[in-house]
Amino acid sequence: MIKAALSVLLVLAALSSTFAKYIPKTGKRIPQTLSRGWGDQLIWAQTYEEGLYWSRSRNKPLMVLFHLEDCPHSLALKKVFSEDNELQRTLDEDFVVLNLVYETTDKHLSPDGQYVPRILFVDPTMTVRADINGRYSNRMYAYEPSDIKLLLSNMQKAKKLLKSEL
Amino acid sequence: MIKAALSVLLVLAALSSTFAKYIPKTGKRIPQTLSRGWGDQLIWAQTYEEGLYWSRSRNKPLMVLFHLEDCPHSLALKKVFSEDNELQRTLDEDFVVLNLVYETTDKHLSPDGQYVPRILFVDPTMTVRADINGRYSNRMYAYEPSDIKLLLSNMQKAKKLLKSEL
Repeated sequence: MIKAALSVLLVLAALSSTFAKYIPKTGKRIPQTLSRGWGDQLIWAQTYEEGLYWSRSRNKPLMVLFHLEDCPHSLALKKVFSEDNELQRTLDEDFVVLNLVYETTDKHLSPDGQYVPRILFVDPTMTVRADINGRYSNRMYAYEPSDIKLLLSNMQKAKKLLKSEL
Repeated sequence: MIKAALSVLLVLAALSSTFAKYIPKTGKRIPQTLSRGWGDQLIWAQTYEEGLYWSRSRNKPLMVLFHLEDCPHSLALKKVFSEDNELQRTLDEDFVVLNLVYETTDKHLSPDGQYVPRILFVDPTMTVRADINGRYSNRMYAYEPSDIKLLLSNMQKAKKLLKSEL
């Protein structure tokens, strides 16, 4: 009887090790999200190419957000950005969103340098809206947590698509 | 007493609506992961630029996996790929990994066309290893679920870095 129970246990152990999912030596990790904390309910593009494609096909402006996970200015902006419901709703309904921790090879996305945090808008015509900027003349596309209202008003500007101005 | 209870309720309701996180009209979404189901415990690069940077700085080969979320061949490979512990462990420990649902602008990543699923290895010297391929002559970088052993042996090939051959 004990022998039988032991065999069952051995079989179960063998089965569980066969079907156990891989766990890193350093312990189980929380899967990374594309949002990186900037809005878990938004549908984020993964790459600039993908963002441009969605922007053109849905006729919505693209917001490109450059940041770094260990940059205190990025983290401070992220907190306010992710908690602002009006901003999140507007982005979800009217924009294509992309956040990047690495620079792209497209120089149009760094009109005045590669600093973070930095927010650029791109029109569905694939034109980078260098005319839509924040309040700092030396870093024209930087925003601080206190600039959220300005960012919202810039989003309204970006929603007026270039082709409608023709 | 009832009045007091009502006021408390109202205050609580007001507070909860102020602090409630944004939820889309279509209902709450599960945040997208960078793994897209190909290995939740792996640390995925987001973009090709990022993958190349990690590959160079860590001196590990980069695996680039092109797939589509609604492609039955991709889904079949994903199931076997994500459940193979040896493959997942090897990728985690010895590779930089990137999965893409959009093509890059780099033609070296599509030596014989832009089909999915398609797996390319890139050496830390930034050389695409077009010499490491699967078993199909018309789609040299395609793998089927039954090709997992071949994929593992190709990963061993990719681990022999080009510079060590010099």
